[in-house]
Amino acid sequence: MKKIITISREYGSGGRFIGRLAAERLGFAFYDRDLIELAAKESGLAADFIKDTDESLSAGAPFNFSIWDMFSHSVFSPDAMPLQDQIHVLLGNIINDIASQEACVIVGRSADYILRDRDDCLNVFIHADREHKLRRVTEDFGVPERNAEKVMEKTDKARASYYRHYSGQIWGLARNYHLSIDSGLFGVEACADTIVRLARL
Amino acid sequence: MKKIITISREYGSGGRFIGRLAAERLGFAFYDRDLIELAAKESGLAADFIKDTDESLSAGAPFNFSIWDMFSHSVFSPDAMPLQDQIHVLLGNIINDIASQEACVIVGRSADYILRDRDDCLNVFIHADREHKLRRVTEDFGVPERNAEKVMEKTDKARASYYRHYSGQIWGLARNYHLSIDSGLFGVEACADTIVRLARL
Repeated sequence: MKKIITISREYGSGGRFIGRLAAERLGFAFYDRDLIELAAKESGLAADFIKDTDESLSAGAPFNFSIWDMFSHSVFSPDAMPLQDQIHVLLGNIINDIASQEACVIVGRSADYILRDRDDCLNVFIHADREHKLRRVTEDFGVPERNAEKVMEKTDKARASYYRHYSGQIWGLARNYHLSIDSGLFGVEACADTIVRLARL
Repeated sequence: MKKIITISREYGSGGRFIGRLAAERLGFAFYDRDLIELAAKESGLAADFIKDTDESLSAGAPFNFSIWDMFSHSVFSPDAMPLQDQIHVLLGNIINDIASQEACVIVGRSADYILRDRDDCLNVFIHADREHKLRRVTEDFGVPERNAEKVMEKTDKARASYYRHYSGQIWGLARNYHLSIDSGLFGVEACADTIVRLARL
Protein backbone atom coordinates (compact mmCIF):
# COMPACT_ATOMS: atom_id res chain seq x y z
CA MET A 1 0.00 0.00 0.00
CA LYS A 2 1.37 3.40 -1.02
CA LYS A 3 0.37 6.35 1.12
CA ILE A 4 1.71 9.17 -1.05
CA ILE A 5 0.68 9.64 -4.67
CA THR A 6 2.40 12.29 -6.77
CA ILE A 7 0.82 13.40 -10.02
CA SER A 8 2.78 15.00 -12.85
CA ARG A 9 0.72 15.88 -15.88
CA GLU A 10 0.56 17.44 -19.30
CA TYR A 11 -1.50 20.61 -19.45
CA GLY A 12 -5.08 19.72 -20.35
CA SER A 13 -4.70 16.01 -19.60
CA GLY A 14 -7.05 16.18 -16.62
CA GLY A 15 -4.29 15.11 -14.22
CA ARG A 16 -5.52 17.37 -11.42
CA PHE A 17 -9.07 16.03 -11.71
CA ILE A 18 -7.79 12.43 -11.80
CA GLY A 19 -5.66 13.14 -8.71
CA ARG A 20 -8.69 14.50 -6.87
CA LEU A 21 -10.82 11.48 -7.83
CA ALA A 22 -8.09 9.09 -6.66
CA ALA A 23 -7.71 11.00 -3.38
CA GLU A 24 -11.47 10.84 -2.73
CA ARG A 25 -11.61 7.10 -3.41
CA LEU A 26 -8.58 6.35 -1.26
CA GLY A 27 -9.66 8.71 1.50
CA PHE A 28 -6.40 10.65 1.08
CA ALA A 29 -5.83 14.38 1.48
CA PHE A 30 -5.41 16.31 -1.78
CA TYR A 31 -2.82 19.05 -2.39
CA ASP A 32 -2.50 21.23 -5.43
CA ARG A 33 -2.96 24.99 -5.19
CA ASP A 34 -3.09 24.43 -1.40
CA LEU A 35 0.71 24.06 -1.40
CA ILE A 36 1.01 27.64 -2.55
CA GLU A 37 -1.43 28.82 0.11
CA LEU A 38 0.59 27.03 2.80
CA ALA A 39 3.80 28.62 1.51
CA ALA A 40 2.11 32.02 1.50
CA LYS A 41 0.99 31.56 5.09
CA GLU A 42 4.44 30.48 6.21
CA SER A 43 6.41 33.15 4.36
CA GLY A 44 4.15 36.16 4.49
CA LEU A 45 4.39 36.47 0.72
CA ALA A 46 1.32 36.70 -1.48
CA ALA A 47 0.16 33.38 -2.94
CA ASP A 48 0.17 34.67 -6.51
CA PHE A 49 3.66 36.05 -6.06
CA ILE A 50 4.90 32.66 -4.81
CA LYS A 51 3.25 30.84 -7.68
CA ASP A 52 4.59 33.22 -10.30
CA THR A 53 8.10 33.28 -8.83
CA ASP A 54 8.31 29.51 -8.46
CA GLU A 55 7.20 29.08 -12.05
CA SER A 56 9.05 32.04 -13.55
CA LEU A 57 12.27 30.13 -14.00
CA SER A 58 10.68 27.82 -16.48
CA ALA A 59 8.98 30.61 -18.38
CA GLY A 60 12.33 32.37 -18.62
CA ALA A 61 11.00 35.54 -16.98
CA PRO A 62 13.68 37.75 -15.45
CA PHE A 63 13.38 37.94 -11.68
CA ASN A 64 12.74 41.42 -10.41
CA PHE A 65 14.78 41.80 -7.23
CA SER A 66 13.05 44.99 -6.25
CA ILE A 67 9.98 42.92 -5.42
CA TRP A 68 12.03 41.21 -2.75
CA ASP A 69 12.48 44.41 -0.77
CA MET A 70 8.76 44.61 -0.28
CA PHE A 71 8.86 41.45 1.80
CA SER A 72 11.86 41.92 4.02
CA HIS A 73 9.79 40.81 7.01
CA SER A 74 9.40 37.31 5.57
CA VAL A 75 11.13 34.08 6.64
CA PHE A 76 13.58 34.32 3.74
CA SER A 77 17.15 35.43 3.99
CA PRO A 78 17.78 37.72 1.02
CA ASP A 79 21.53 37.09 1.19
CA ALA A 80 21.45 33.36 0.68
CA MET A 81 20.21 31.96 -2.62
CA PRO A 82 17.99 33.46 -5.29
CA LEU A 83 14.45 34.01 -4.02
CA GLN A 84 13.16 31.64 -6.66
CA ASP A 85 15.24 28.80 -5.22
CA GLN A 86 14.30 29.78 -1.66
CA ILE A 87 10.63 29.56 -2.58
CA HIS A 88 11.24 26.17 -4.12
CA VAL A 89 13.00 25.02 -0.94
CA LEU A 90 10.07 26.29 1.15
CA LEU A 91 7.61 24.41 -1.08
CA GLY A 92 9.85 21.33 -0.81
CA ASN A 93 9.82 21.53 2.99
CA ILE A 94 6.05 21.87 2.99
CA ILE A 95 5.70 18.84 0.69
CA ASN A 96 8.04 16.81 2.92
CA ASP A 97 6.08 17.81 6.03
CA ILE A 98 2.75 16.90 4.47
CA ALA A 99 4.08 13.54 3.26
CA SER A 100 5.33 12.63 6.72
CA GLN A 101 2.04 13.59 8.34
CA GLU A 102 -0.75 12.12 6.24
CA ALA A 103 -1.69 9.95 3.30
CA CYS A 104 -2.12 12.29 0.35
CA VAL A 105 -2.19 13.00 -3.36
CA ILE A 106 0.10 15.86 -4.45
CA VAL A 107 -0.23 17.44 -7.89
CA GLY A 108 2.74 19.17 -9.53
CA ARG A 109 5.79 20.95 -8.04
CA SER A 110 8.13 18.01 -8.89
CA ALA A 111 6.85 16.27 -5.75
CA ASP A 112 8.03 12.92 -7.13
CA TYR A 113 11.59 14.22 -7.08
CA ILE A 114 11.27 16.06 -3.75
CA LEU A 115 10.04 12.82 -2.12
CA ARG A 116 12.46 10.53 -3.99
CA ASP A 117 14.01 9.09 -0.79
CA ARG A 118 10.68 7.80 0.54
CA ASP A 119 9.61 4.28 -0.36
CA ASP A 120 5.89 4.86 0.10
CA CYS A 121 5.34 7.04 -2.98
CA LEU A 122 3.51 6.09 -6.14
CA ASN A 123 4.61 8.50 -8.89
CA VAL A 124 2.18 8.99 -11.75
CA PHE A 125 2.41 10.86 -15.06
CA ILE A 126 -0.83 11.72 -16.89
CA HIS A 127 -0.80 12.57 -20.57
CA ALA A 128 -3.28 12.65 -23.44
CA ASP A 129 -3.53 13.14 -27.16
CA ARG A 130 -3.73 16.64 -28.58
CA GLU A 131 -7.48 16.50 -29.37
CA HIS A 132 -8.55 15.54 -25.84
CA LYS A 133 -6.27 18.16 -24.30
CA LEU A 134 -7.51 20.87 -26.66
CA ARG A 135 -11.10 20.07 -25.75
CA ARG A 136 -10.41 20.29 -22.00
CA VAL A 137 -8.34 23.47 -22.33
CA THR A 138 -10.98 25.31 -24.34
CA GLU A 139 -14.18 23.90 -22.78
CA ASP A 140 -13.17 23.43 -19.13
CA PHE A 141 -10.35 25.94 -18.65
CA GLY A 142 -11.96 28.55 -20.91
CA VAL A 143 -8.86 29.27 -22.96
CA PRO A 144 -9.90 30.86 -26.29
CA GLU A 145 -9.56 28.38 -29.13
CA ARG A 146 -7.12 30.56 -31.06
CA ASN A 147 -4.67 30.55 -28.13
CA ALA A 148 -5.20 27.02 -26.84
CA GLU A 149 -2.46 25.28 -28.80
CA LYS A 150 0.11 27.91 -27.87
CA VAL A 151 -0.85 27.89 -24.17
CA MET A 152 -0.64 24.09 -24.08
CA GLU A 153 2.77 24.07 -25.67
CA LYS A 154 4.13 26.87 -23.50
CA THR A 155 2.82 25.38 -20.25
CA ASP A 156 4.26 21.93 -20.92
CA LYS A 157 7.57 23.44 -21.98
CA ALA A 158 7.64 25.37 -18.70
CA ARG A 159 6.84 22.22 -16.71
CA ALA A 160 9.63 20.34 -18.48
CA SER A 161 12.13 23.14 -17.72
CA TYR A 162 11.04 23.35 -14.09
CA TYR A 163 11.45 19.61 -13.65
CA ARG A 164 14.82 19.55 -15.38
CA HIS A 165 16.06 22.49 -13.31
CA TYR A 166 15.18 20.96 -9.96
CA SER A 167 15.65 17.24 -10.67
CA GLY A 168 18.14 17.07 -13.53
CA GLN A 169 15.73 14.54 -15.06
CA ILE A 170 13.65 14.45 -18.23
CA TRP A 171 10.01 15.32 -17.65
CA GLY A 172 7.63 12.72 -19.08
CA LEU A 173 10.20 9.94 -19.45
CA ALA A 174 8.33 6.75 -18.52
CA ARG A 175 11.05 5.35 -16.28
CA ASN A 176 10.84 8.39 -13.98
CA TYR A 177 7.31 7.41 -12.91
CA HIS A 178 5.79 4.16 -11.66
CA LEU A 179 2.77 4.62 -13.89
CA SER A 180 2.16 6.77 -16.97
CA ILE A 181 -1.29 6.69 -18.46
CA ASP A 182 -3.21 8.21 -21.38
CA SER A 183 -6.33 9.92 -20.04
CA GLY A 184 -7.55 10.63 -23.57
CA LEU A 185 -7.80 6.97 -24.50
CA PHE A 186 -8.96 5.55 -21.16
CA GLY A 187 -10.89 8.47 -19.67
CA VAL A 188 -10.40 10.07 -16.25
CA GLU A 189 -12.49 7.49 -14.36
CA ALA A 190 -10.41 4.54 -15.55
CA CYS A 191 -7.17 6.42 -14.85
CA ALA A 192 -8.23 7.19 -11.27
CA ASP A 193 -9.37 3.59 -10.86
CA THR A 194 -6.00 2.26 -12.10
CA ILE A 195 -4.12 4.52 -9.67
CA VAL A 196 -6.33 3.44 -6.77
CA ARG A 197 -5.89 -0.28 -7.56
CA LEU A 198 -2.11 0.00 -7.89
CA ALA A 199 -1.78 2.15 -4.76
CA ARG A 200 -3.59 -0.55 -2.78
CA LEU A 201 -1.31 -3.41 -3.87
CA MET B 1 -12.02 -3.08 -26.36
CA LYS B 2 -8.56 -3.10 -27.94
CA LYS B 3 -7.65 -6.12 -30.03
CA ILE B 4 -3.94 -5.42 -30.57
CA ILE B 5 -1.52 -4.89 -27.70
CA THR B 6 2.04 -3.85 -28.44
CA ILE B 7 4.68 -4.21 -25.75
CA SER B 8 7.91 -2.21 -25.70
CA ARG B 9 10.17 -2.93 -22.77
CA GLU B 10 13.44 -2.30 -21.05
CA TYR B 11 15.77 -5.29 -21.03
CA GLY B 12 15.16 -7.32 -17.88
CA SER B 13 11.83 -5.68 -17.06
CA GLY B 14 9.87 -8.88 -17.71
CA GLY B 15 7.94 -7.24 -20.56
CA ARG B 16 7.87 -10.39 -22.65
CA PHE B 17 6.55 -12.46 -19.74
CA ILE B 18 3.93 -9.80 -18.94
CA GLY B 19 2.88 -9.75 -22.61
CA ARG B 20 2.47 -13.53 -22.60
CA LEU B 21 0.40 -13.43 -19.39
CA ALA B 22 -1.86 -10.71 -20.82
CA ALA B 23 -2.28 -12.67 -24.08
CA GLU B 24 -3.27 -15.82 -22.18
CA ARG B 25 -5.81 -13.96 -20.05
CA LEU B 26 -7.33 -12.14 -23.01
CA GLY B 27 -7.28 -15.23 -25.22
CA PHE B 28 -5.10 -13.34 -27.72
CA ALA B 29 -2.33 -14.75 -29.92
CA PHE B 30 1.22 -13.91 -28.78
CA TYR B 31 4.06 -12.85 -31.09
CA ASP B 32 7.64 -12.32 -30.16
CA ARG B 33 10.41 -14.45 -31.65
CA ASP B 34 7.65 -15.89 -33.89
CA LEU B 35 7.82 -12.74 -36.02
CA ILE B 36 11.39 -13.61 -36.95
CA GLU B 37 10.39 -17.20 -37.78
CA LEU B 38 7.61 -15.93 -40.04
CA ALA B 39 10.04 -13.57 -41.78
CA ALA B 40 12.50 -16.44 -42.20
CA LYS B 41 9.84 -18.64 -43.78
CA GLU B 42 8.73 -15.90 -46.15
CA SER B 43 12.19 -14.77 -47.21
CA GLY B 44 14.20 -17.97 -47.23
CA LEU B 45 16.76 -16.30 -44.95
CA ALA B 46 17.89 -17.90 -41.70
CA ALA B 47 16.01 -16.71 -38.61
CA ASP B 48 19.20 -15.78 -36.76
CA PHE B 49 20.45 -13.84 -39.75
CA ILE B 50 17.18 -11.87 -39.91
CA LYS B 51 17.27 -11.14 -36.20
CA ASP B 52 20.91 -10.05 -36.26
CA THR B 53 20.49 -7.93 -39.39
CA ASP B 54 17.33 -6.22 -38.16
CA GLU B 55 19.04 -5.40 -34.89
CA SER B 56 22.50 -4.63 -36.26
CA LEU B 57 21.66 -1.04 -37.05
CA SER B 58 21.15 -0.21 -33.46
CA ALA B 59 24.27 -2.06 -32.33
CA GLY B 60 26.23 -0.16 -34.96
CA ALA B 61 27.52 -3.38 -36.54
CA PRO B 62 28.72 -2.99 -40.13
CA PHE B 63 26.54 -4.90 -42.57
CA ASN B 64 28.39 -7.58 -44.49
CA PHE B 65 27.03 -7.44 -48.04
CA SER B 66 28.70 -10.70 -49.04
CA ILE B 67 26.16 -12.53 -46.91
CA TRP B 68 23.47 -11.17 -49.19
CA ASP B 69 24.80 -13.10 -52.20
CA MET B 70 24.14 -16.36 -50.41
CA PHE B 71 20.41 -15.64 -50.50
CA SER B 72 19.84 -14.42 -54.03
CA HIS B 73 16.80 -16.70 -54.28
CA SER B 74 14.94 -14.76 -51.59
CA VAL B 75 12.03 -12.37 -51.97
CA PHE B 76 14.32 -9.35 -51.60
CA SER B 77 15.52 -7.20 -54.40
CA PRO B 78 19.20 -6.51 -53.75
CA ASP B 79 19.10 -3.33 -55.85
CA ALA B 80 16.49 -1.49 -53.88
CA MET B 81 17.21 -0.44 -50.32
CA PRO B 82 19.75 -1.74 -47.82
CA LEU B 83 18.96 -5.30 -46.76
CA GLN B 84 18.52 -4.14 -43.21
CA ASP B 85 15.68 -1.84 -44.23
CA GLN B 86 14.19 -4.51 -46.48
CA ILE B 87 14.10 -6.90 -43.56
CA HIS B 88 12.44 -4.24 -41.44
CA VAL B 89 9.84 -3.70 -44.17
CA LEU B 90 9.22 -7.44 -44.34
CA LEU B 91 8.77 -7.58 -40.56
CA GLY B 92 6.46 -4.57 -40.79
CA ASN B 93 4.34 -6.29 -43.42
CA ILE B 94 4.12 -9.40 -41.28
CA ILE B 95 3.09 -7.35 -38.24
CA ASN B 96 0.43 -5.54 -40.30
CA ASP B 97 -0.90 -8.85 -41.64
CA ILE B 98 -1.09 -10.40 -38.20
CA ALA B 99 -2.84 -7.33 -36.76
CA SER B 100 -5.49 -7.39 -39.46
CA GLN B 101 -6.13 -11.10 -38.99
CA GLU B 102 -6.36 -11.75 -35.26
CA ALA B 103 -6.40 -10.26 -31.77
CA CYS B 104 -2.81 -10.42 -30.53
CA VAL B 105 -0.03 -9.21 -28.26
CA ILE B 106 3.16 -8.24 -30.12
CA VAL B 107 6.44 -7.76 -28.26
CA GLY B 108 9.17 -5.53 -29.67
CA ARG B 109 10.04 -4.52 -33.28
CA SER B 110 8.52 -1.02 -32.88
CA ALA B 111 5.11 -2.58 -33.50
CA ASP B 112 3.45 0.44 -31.86
CA TYR B 113 4.88 2.65 -34.59
CA ILE B 114 4.29 0.17 -37.43
CA LEU B 115 0.61 -0.04 -36.42
CA ARG B 116 0.22 3.69 -35.64
CA ASP B 117 -2.64 4.21 -38.13
CA ARG B 118 -4.88 1.60 -36.49
CA ASP B 119 -7.24 2.71 -33.74
CA ASP B 120 -7.53 -0.68 -32.05
CA CYS B 121 -4.01 -0.77 -30.56
CA LEU B 122 -3.07 -0.45 -26.92
CA ASN B 123 0.62 0.50 -26.74
CA VAL B 124 2.43 -0.43 -23.54
CA PHE B 125 5.94 0.31 -22.24
CA ILE B 126 7.30 -1.86 -19.41
CA HIS B 127 10.21 -0.65 -17.29
CA ALA B 128 11.70 -1.43 -13.89
CA ASP B 129 14.30 -0.24 -11.44
CA ARG B 130 17.90 -1.40 -11.84
CA GLU B 131 17.79 -3.96 -9.01
CA HIS B 132 14.77 -5.85 -10.31
CA LYS B 133 16.18 -5.89 -13.85
CA LEU B 134 19.59 -7.09 -12.65
CA ARG B 135 17.96 -9.95 -10.76
CA ARG B 136 15.95 -11.08 -13.79
CA VAL B 137 18.90 -10.74 -16.17
CA THR B 138 21.23 -12.81 -13.99
CA GLU B 139 18.79 -15.36 -12.53
CA ASP B 140 16.33 -15.88 -15.39
CA PHE B 141 18.36 -14.99 -18.49
CA GLY B 142 21.57 -16.49 -17.11
CA VAL B 143 23.77 -13.49 -17.90
CA PRO B 144 26.92 -13.62 -15.70
CA GLU B 145 26.74 -11.04 -12.93
CA ARG B 146 29.93 -9.27 -14.03
CA ASN B 147 28.43 -8.60 -17.49
CA ALA B 148 24.82 -7.97 -16.53
CA GLU B 149 24.96 -4.21 -16.13
CA LYS B 150 26.80 -3.75 -19.43
CA VAL B 151 24.43 -6.07 -21.33
CA MET B 152 21.40 -4.23 -19.92
CA GLU B 153 22.77 -0.85 -20.89
CA LYS B 154 23.84 -1.97 -24.37
CA THR B 155 20.55 -3.70 -25.13
CA ASP B 156 18.41 -0.74 -24.09
CA LYS B 157 20.65 1.64 -26.02
CA ALA B 158 20.18 -0.58 -29.08
CA ARG B 159 16.41 -0.61 -28.61
CA ALA B 160 16.34 3.16 -28.31
CA SER B 161 18.40 3.55 -31.52
CA TYR B 162 16.24 1.06 -33.39
CA TYR B 163 13.09 2.87 -32.34
CA ARG B 164 14.50 6.29 -33.19
CA HIS B 165 15.72 5.08 -36.59
CA TYR B 166 12.37 3.66 -37.65
CA SER B 167 9.94 6.00 -35.90
CA GLY B 168 11.85 9.25 -35.40
CA GLN B 169 10.48 9.13 -31.84
CA ILE B 170 12.08 8.87 -28.41
CA TRP B 171 11.95 5.37 -26.96
CA GLY B 172 10.48 5.28 -23.46
CA LEU B 173 8.82 8.71 -23.59
CA ALA B 174 5.52 8.28 -21.73
CA ARG B 175 3.40 10.11 -24.30
CA ASN B 176 4.38 7.60 -27.01
CA TYR B 177 2.52 4.81 -25.18
CA HIS B 178 -0.98 4.55 -23.74
CA LEU B 179 0.36 2.90 -20.60
CA SER B 180 3.84 2.75 -19.06
CA ILE B 181 4.26 0.71 -15.94
CA ASP B 182 6.98 -0.25 -13.46
CA SER B 183 7.12 -4.05 -13.20
CA GLY B 184 9.66 -3.84 -10.38
CA LEU B 185 7.30 -2.00 -8.05
CA PHE B 186 4.02 -3.65 -9.01
CA GLY B 187 5.17 -7.13 -10.08
CA VAL B 188 4.43 -8.93 -13.36
CA GLU B 189 1.00 -10.20 -12.30
CA ALA B 190 -0.34 -6.73 -11.49
CA CYS B 191 1.12 -5.33 -14.71
CA ALA B 192 -0.58 -8.03 -16.81
CA ASP B 193 -3.80 -7.47 -14.88
CA THR B 194 -3.68 -3.70 -15.52
CA ILE B 195 -3.12 -4.26 -19.25
CA VAL B 196 -6.02 -6.74 -19.41
CA ARG B 197 -8.39 -4.38 -17.57
CA LEU B 198 -7.51 -1.40 -19.75
CA ALA B 199 -7.67 -3.44 -22.97
CA ARG B 200 -11.22 -4.49 -22.07
CA LEU B 201 -12.54 -0.94 -21.53
